[in-house]
Amino acid sequence: VEKASLRQGRCSRPPDRAAVHGRPALEHYFKDRFAASRFRFSFTFSDIQLAGDIAFERLAYTALAWPAGGGPAVEDAGKGLHVYRRQSDGSWKLVLDIWNSDRPAEPRR
Amino acid sequence: VEKASLRQGRCSRPPDRAAVHGRPALEHYFKDRFAASRFRFSFTFSDIQLAGDIAFERLAYTALAWPAGGGPAVEDAGKGLHVYRRQSDGSWKLVLDIWNSDRPAEPRR
Repeated sequence: VEKASLRQGRCSRPPDRAAVHGRPALEHYFKDRFAASRFRFSFTFSDIQLAGDIAFERLAYTALAWPAGGGPAVEDAGKGLHVYRRQSDGSWKLVLDIWNSDRPAEPRR
Repeated sequence: VEKASLRQGRCSRPPDRAAVHGRPALEHYFKDRFAASRFRFSFTFSDIQLAGDIAFERLAYTALAWPAGGGPAVEDAGKGLHVYRRQSDGSWKLVLDIWNSDRPAEPRR
């Protein structure tokens, strides 16, 4: 999956797990995420740079996640990079996204 | 710092902390990292796409980190994205890098 071409669809690179590549895998990933928690996202920064048929966007976000099983909301703040490619019809398509948290992590076991 | 232009120098976006922007801040950041641990990195995947004066590289890595204070090495594996910009002299300069781990995180407190 990692080595698949971007021509084969969007490649998402979330923290704390392997890359997710292509529409079926992405649908599965986001369905699981949204089943586990309800989210409220705010994008707090965006800077887009154009280079021919590619655009890349630095962004920052804050998020609140309410676990589906109850309990207090978990706060997060982080940053990411989105890469868009202009399609033959002139529209822009997200082809790659990667992000990580600004918050200190607990040490990994 | 977050909102500074990429014209003002490389913007690194490490996990678990805020973005690091510009040479003095980057020197400080990497000096601290290399003082805290000795690292061995292997890049296990690279795919570079060109778009005019921009190149972006998907990559994956494995890493071993030996804490300076002793103790067992910590293993990591992850993925990242590097953005390079062609300079007026034809050379390529890393202007943005972001990465994250593939390993499950401990829940944040």
